[in-house]
Amino acid sequence: MRIDKDCIGERFIPDNVLYGIHTLRAMHNFPITAEKVNPVVIESYLQIKKAAAIANQKAGSLSAQKASLIVSACNQLLFSGDYSDFCVPAIQGGAGTSTNMNVNEVVSQLAMRLSAQGGKKAVKIHPNDDVNQSQSTNDTYPTAGKMAMLKKLSPLLASLTKLIEALDEKAQTYSNAIKVGRTQLQDAVPTTFGRSFNAYASLFRRDYRRLKATINVLSVVNLGGTAIGTGLNTTPEYQRQIIPILNKVSHLSLVQATDLIDGTQNSDAFTTISGALKVLATDLSKFSNDLRLLSSGPQAGLNEIELPKQAAGSSIMPGKVNPIIPEVVNQVAFEVIGNDVTVTMAAESGQLELNAFEPIMFRAILTSEQHLARAMTTLVENCVAGITVNTEHCRQEVERSSIAATILSPILGYEKTTQIIKKAMATKQSVRELVKQEHVLSDSLIDDLFSPEVLTNVRKANQNQLRTASTHH
Amino acid sequence: MRIDKDCIGERFIPDNVLYGIHTLRAMHNFPITAEKVNPVVIESYLQIKKAAAIANQKAGSLSAQKASLIVSACNQLLFSGDYSDFCVPAIQGGAGTSTNMNVNEVVSQLAMRLSAQGGKKAVKIHPNDDVNQSQSTNDTYPTAGKMAMLKKLSPLLASLTKLIEALDEKAQTYSNAIKVGRTQLQDAVPTTFGRSFNAYASLFRRDYRRLKATINVLSVVNLGGTAIGTGLNTTPEYQRQIIPILNKVSHLSLVQATDLIDGTQNSDAFTTISGALKVLATDLSKFSNDLRLLSSGPQAGLNEIELPKQAAGSSIMPGKVNPIIPEVVNQVAFEVIGNDVTVTMAAESGQLELNAFEPIMFRAILTSEQHLARAMTTLVENCVAGITVNTEHCRQEVERSSIAATILSPILGYEKTTQIIKKAMATKQSVRELVKQEHVLSDSLIDDLFSPEVLTNVRKANQNQLRTASTHH
Amino acid sequence: MRIDKDCIGERFIPDNVLYGIHTLRAMHNFPITAEKVNPVVIESYLQIKKAAAIANQKAGSLSAQKASLIVSACNQLLFSGDYSDFCVPAIQGGAGTSTNMNVNEVVSQLAMRLSAQGGKKAVKIHPNDDVNQSQSTNDTYPTAGKMAMLKKLSPLLASLTKLIEALDEKAQTYSNAIKVGRTQLQDAVPTTFGRSFNAYASLFRRDYRRLKATINVLSVVNLGGTAIGTGLNTTPEYQRQIIPILNKVSHLSLVQATDLIDGTQNSDAFTTISGALKVLATDLSKFSNDLRLLSSGPQAGLNEIELPKQAAGSSIMPGKVNPIIPEVVNQVAFEVIGNDVTVTMAAESGQLELNAFEPIMFRAILTSEQHLARAMTTLVENCVAGITVNTEHCRQEVERSSIAATILSPILGYEKTTQIIKKAMATKQSVRELVKQEHVLSDSLIDDLFSPEVLTNVRKANQNQLRTASTHH
Amino acid sequence: MRIDKDCIGERFIPDNVLYGIHTLRAMHNFPITAEKVNPVVIESYLQIKKAAAIANQKAGSLSAQKASLIVSACNQLLFSGDYSDFCVPAIQGGAGTSTNMNVNEVVSQLAMRLSAQGGKKAVKIHPNDDVNQSQSTNDTYPTAGKMAMLKKLSPLLASLTKLIEALDEKAQTYSNAIKVGRTQLQDAVPTTFGRSFNAYASLFRRDYRRLKATINVLSVVNLGGTAIGTGLNTTPEYQRQIIPILNKVSHLSLVQATDLIDGTQNSDAFTTISGALKVLATDLSKFSNDLRLLSSGPQAGLNEIELPKQAAGSSIMPGKVNPIIPEVVNQVAFEVIGNDVTVTMAAESGQLELNAFEPIMFRAILTSEQHLARAMTTLVENCVAGITVNTEHCRQEVERSSIAATILSPILGYEKTTQIIKKAMATKQSVRELVKQEHVLSDSLIDDLFSPEVLTNVRKANQNQLRTASTHH
Repeated sequence: MRIDKDCIGERFIPDNVLYGIHTLRAMHNFPITAEKVNPVVIESYLQIKKAAAIANQKAGSLSAQKASLIVSACNQLLFSGDYSDFCVPAIQGGAGTSTNMNVNEVVSQLAMRLSAQGGKKAVKIHPNDDVNQSQSTNDTYPTAGKMAMLKKLSPLLASLTKLIEALDEKAQTYSNAIKVGRTQLQDAVPTTFGRSFNAYASLFRRDYRRLKATINVLSVVNLGGTAIGTGLNTTPEYQRQIIPILNKVSHLSLVQATDLIDGTQNSDAFTTISGALKVLATDLSKFSNDLRLLSSGPQAGLNEIELPKQAAGSSIMPGKVNPIIPEVVNQVAFEVIGNDVTVTMAAESGQLELNAFEPIMFRAILTSEQHLARAMTTLVENCVAGITVNTEHCRQEVERSSIAATILSPILGYEKTTQIIKKAMATKQSVRELVKQEHVLSDSLIDDLFSPEVLTNVRKANQNQLRTASTHH
Repeated sequence: MRIDKDCIGERFIPDNVLYGIHTLRAMHNFPITAEKVNPVVIESYLQIKKAAAIANQKAGSLSAQKASLIVSACNQLLFSGDYSDFCVPAIQGGAGTSTNMNVNEVVSQLAMRLSAQGGKKAVKIHPNDDVNQSQSTNDTYPTAGKMAMLKKLSPLLASLTKLIEALDEKAQTYSNAIKVGRTQLQDAVPTTFGRSFNAYASLFRRDYRRLKATINVLSVVNLGGTAIGTGLNTTPEYQRQIIPILNKVSHLSLVQATDLIDGTQNSDAFTTISGALKVLATDLSKFSNDLRLLSSGPQAGLNEIELPKQAAGSSIMPGKVNPIIPEVVNQVAFEVIGNDVTVTMAAESGQLELNAFEPIMFRAILTSEQHLARAMTTLVENCVAGITVNTEHCRQEVERSSIAATILSPILGYEKTTQIIKKAMATKQSVRELVKQEHVLSDSLIDDLFSPEVLTNVRKANQNQLRTASTHH
Repeated sequence: MRIDKDCIGERFIPDNVLYGIHTLRAMHNFPITAEKVNPVVIESYLQIKKAAAIANQKAGSLSAQKASLIVSACNQLLFSGDYSDFCVPAIQGGAGTSTNMNVNEVVSQLAMRLSAQGGKKAVKIHPNDDVNQSQSTNDTYPTAGKMAMLKKLSPLLASLTKLIEALDEKAQTYSNAIKVGRTQLQDAVPTTFGRSFNAYASLFRRDYRRLKATINVLSVVNLGGTAIGTGLNTTPEYQRQIIPILNKVSHLSLVQATDLIDGTQNSDAFTTISGALKVLATDLSKFSNDLRLLSSGPQAGLNEIELPKQAAGSSIMPGKVNPIIPEVVNQVAFEVIGNDVTVTMAAESGQLELNAFEPIMFRAILTSEQHLARAMTTLVENCVAGITVNTEHCRQEVERSSIAATILSPILGYEKTTQIIKKAMATKQSVRELVKQEHVLSDSLIDDLFSPEVLTNVRKANQNQLRTASTHH
Repeated sequence: MRIDKDCIGERFIPDNVLYGIHTLRAMHNFPITAEKVNPVVIESYLQIKKAAAIANQKAGSLSAQKASLIVSACNQLLFSGDYSDFCVPAIQGGAGTSTNMNVNEVVSQLAMRLSAQGGKKAVKIHPNDDVNQSQSTNDTYPTAGKMAMLKKLSPLLASLTKLIEALDEKAQTYSNAIKVGRTQLQDAVPTTFGRSFNAYASLFRRDYRRLKATINVLSVVNLGGTAIGTGLNTTPEYQRQIIPILNKVSHLSLVQATDLIDGTQNSDAFTTISGALKVLATDLSKFSNDLRLLSSGPQAGLNEIELPKQAAGSSIMPGKVNPIIPEVVNQVAFEVIGNDVTVTMAAESGQLELNAFEPIMFRAILTSEQHLARAMTTLVENCVAGITVNTEHCRQEVERSSIAATILSPILGYEKTTQIIKKAMATKQSVRELVKQEHVLSDSLIDDLFSPEVLTNVRKANQNQLRTASTHH
């Protein structure tokens, strides 16, 4: 056991842990959830500490020996991935101070232990004066948060790309599969599954671009701003070097905010990424709703597509199979939309020179990124890739559909066509046959109009015949 | 033109209006929306002013002459319903002060004019010292808001009652109309439309009780608390009399909060009513979704029910008819759910002894009450009352449904039954016929099991036959 | 390794686990989060399985031997609390089927292993035919969810009670500590900290009652309804017994829904509890905002109260201490408010006879309950209990406050009082002195009026003096 | 009176109105709110009808005579701005069909009346066959909605620009006004009001760019898609001409979506603009919170700035003035954030080939745009432009502030500095004097360090002195 102290008092710390009194207090103060700070935030923080040690050494404010020990400690933690001493709860007060303190403590303690290896006298590395030199929680915490969000974007975009590819493939496979288009759940004009899958792919391509565009937003960091963004207690050399060094360490492309006061107090980068995630969630939920609806039945539903069977669907109803993958995607979407409200409230509640509620924003956004990425992965692999279309059933529905008569409207007029449709429905006759019986249009024109290609407007009807017909009505 | 002044300066006021400088400033300061303060808030405020004048007279702090003039002015406004001089915008800063000032100004001006009728010398009635005597915006504004919400609850509950009655009637009409029950949009076991309509009615009965229960919440008012709830500048006699008199004037059953400081600063009554409205909205939206789904088609959809046709459904597709009434209900629900977020944020943002954001809460809640009431009215009159069930189509679907074989599970076991269902689906055979072919159960038991009453568990299958069958498997 | 199969295919299952193929598929299909189904849901599910086995035995549909083995298996799991084989992810599709299947599998497997102890021939216990007998996911899952929510309410209410008690104690300690009341962050009339703490206690007492009232809502369960609430595949005896037995097993007071179709498809119980949790969250957040505001400074802020110091507040600013406990409460509140949106969307999205999105609702609600309970615990222990009021500083502020002159308004009138206050502010004079200088009221009346008791309306000013004064103005 | 009919039946229409049966039915079906469809939507619709008539004429499918009459009718309505016959309620079912029908009816009726002027025989203009030719509600309604949102963006961006300019001006005026910076409402290191105002301006510049970027999003329209985006019943010539003509008519820069099916069914453009508005609202609310906090008091608050007095603040407390303008901005922000939830739910609820809930999305977005524009106008004119800083009071606070000692941390170390600050607070001494008494640093270095320029890091302290000092500690 060793004794650690802060401005409030002293505490015993077990020898086998690297953290100190600040971390201990955080565990005591924030017993909300067992969930710790996201490892990707810790990783980013370690990269910041490493970069800062290098920059401080170059600026002459930290000795080469200390800098080297701090870098070694960071490297050891980063390479091993053993983050067991980073045990501040994810939901925390203090605007991230506990997280920063935890990192400072662990790095300094490990650096001191490294210095004492081989029986050497330990070098004193102070968590604040050395590891935290030229830094504040005010600048390192938002920077680490943005780095983490950037890193989580990669798997998200990769997952989204696979979804787009899977949809493109389905669009190609079913490019000619005709089906009844529906507006307001009522039969409308015919379309094809090729078009439907294309439309989803178009939608998710925009989501890809929207999320990709947030990289620029998140890459602007306030590191170097220290307390409230004034840059107090930093050196000019540190300011020049810190971002380039951090980029080298992290393989990111960060830039320093031109207005560091603004960069420290405002949270619009977080509401922006959260908003983009929410739009993706909304789109995924709409898509999942469609999949569930189109695969409904199998006997008393639309039954236009079949989703791959992934699990027995009922403990009591044998043979039942449910659309469980779209269902889980819906639920992730609802979670992400709720998270966006959380982020919005936290952003709105920021006061004066700092937003104290970044911890809940970071947690919500990182969770949303992760859950969406994984939801799309299971959506592609366990659902979309295996979708099959019941093409024959869909074709029959188009033939039965009276609303296909819309094609006649420019020739016969809205009102006459209305009468035909009403009569077809009442008599349960096919519209095509009914129109033929009326002898107002030639049979060949009618067959041309009611061909799948003309109904779906892939090609226009024979213009000569049409012109002749139109002049008669 | 007359001149009016306040602690900031002077302004000209046209002679033909009753309001004064405070109202003028509000119009200048809050040009957000043309929408004025809800008339039911104004009505409630006039009732408060009238009751306060009576109570102040009884307490001896207001002369009989002034009290009588104030009461006359309030009565004239209440009876005529001409609220054209109450022109403070609904969205306003100042925690309702402008609204209270507007009422004080109009009532005092009208009272003075009444006193001068017949060429008499006008009695000076001061908006603050007389009309607002023993009151503050801090107590009158929340009280008027709660009174308004209570009044708006009546048509809401009446409308909800009609919805319940309409559903009860449908439940009776279609008590035996068998249909496929669905879980997760997949065919499940049979049920009846009687049960479905009953279940909706049960749901809305709970909504009725939930909303009814908010009457007690809203009836606790902080009138008498004046500034921040200390009751400063009131008399003991006023305190004793004000609520009973106001109840007589308004026909409500208000009670004074026991903790007036609490009653002045906390907004949980508003989040509570808003939450109950949100639950109703959520339930109405789910119900509307079901109506739209069950009436989908008519040819390429579920087509189990028909909604009354209310409008041509398309400018281009002749004969198309859409579920426009449920659609408008869905949208009102989305609005109400959004309003609840607005109310929540406003309530959360209250600070110390007062919540300055009551105006937006009042607007959101009163709008939600009104829109929900009207949405339910059109839902009942233009939709639910005229719903018809396609009973024959629904019965056929049950017969085609393989999942009805669930009834066999306790006899044959989950796994054997699974095999039967899979075979029935693959071969497109009826389960009933398939089971008969297998000769594992007697035909009479099979017919008994697959009768509508047994399938829907209205009655149990013949127990003797069942017991014999079960012992064989 | 053993082989398990379902309606889709076969899978190898390691011998050392109790779960089967359904659980394996769930882990494969729902790789969203490492978080498993909440243990309190599993506990409730085991109680249901135990109760069902007993009821089925009594109904004669399950052998005494099997029932006894199932009960033993449930007991062993419940008593050990070893839930390591319940590994279905918390975020899951399938409306809870995977959770139910997981429990059926584990219980049946353990029951079989128990039967084989001592080298006996294992009794075959089927997960669906035996463990799940007379049940469906449709009824057990919502029932287990409600039981879990009820159980989580207890610590929440206990935590809330401690908050109320701590506030009551503070109210007593500081009953006479006078302070400036504020509306809209502007100085208003004087009040006391006793009243402030009382008002918070009054608020949270209502929250207590609101949450307590949800016990009745959550206690109505649809157990016995099986698939979609028809009660198919149950026996009358089971129906009579299942709820009383479950109450004995679980020490809860559940009642069966009278309309089981309704009880199965509607989610208003969940939106209701979520709404009540949201109101509590909103109230806690407002309270936390006040604590942070009143303790702001210490030198350039309000500095009216001091929160106990819990941690060093800055890595760069030595000696800084922050309101970290209220901050973490704010963040939990934002999370809970976001969760309510998630619950609302999930409830609204339910379709026809079942809401497929119960898993995300359960997770959101149980998390909200747990986080709120813990947030209040740290709020009481690490903050409220140790609050001290800077009484002298607060008293001085009241004396400096010009707005205290409001007390003069009924005597001198609103306009004359306005002039006095404006003059006092402009000349930075004390209002009391200024009024004395004007010789419009006697010094003794002025001193009486400006005494703390009269300013805070604890007692009225001397009525004789007042009457004399009033008649002069 | 004339008779009009649709596929459902007939209705009498008064002669003095231009609308027809579809409009009448909408008023009957949607009695939710007295608010009509936003005039800017009607204007956009009239521009579409005019452009379509021209394009149809060029395509040879509409006679020159009819086209000319339709154009004249549209022009007359557009120029007069008399939209009294467009009386479909803003909240409507039917996916906008009623709105389109209303426009078709009014334009055709007016065109026919124009044709009959001077006693000529009226030309028959059919609302669907002629005015709606080559169009569907599916394409015209979303196009009109996007046009309306684009038009509403202009005043919004203009208003935002004025806010930025006003902040820039304040930043310049108060560039050297030193003040205590605060994190988590606790005193932190000194800064200046120049920096504070700059930071707000930086924030709102990003909001400007974010909103400006939505112009590209909103400019992609699905006009030409007709029913569900297939382009059925249009001519190739119409497709080529419609967008260029519409751009000429409307002075916008619209482009046709490359995937019209996608353009018709997906709502991400609406969630995107709504999200950007929400971010602005969140930022405005945070800014307003700061203004209210910094102007709190005047005697028992921060009192760092003074907002221009805009209204008497209390009906009972004479002389009280409140921050009413920021308060109204807060409330508009809460409304906009609620509207975003409404838009999100409506977008998520779209099904298959069309989103039926565009009406509520359009209403919510257009309202948010309008209210935000107006809120910023009153914020600039009635608040920000007149803000004054209490510079002397702020300077004194910095001098009293112990936390300024942070400047000593790099020299004396974190722990020694902590001790100094604790001692200063306990003894109520000035840190500067205390450090001087300790004789650990030269008086000239201390004065240099505690000069406003060094404290705010505008310039670094004398490096020679610093280096000497640092080597001693």
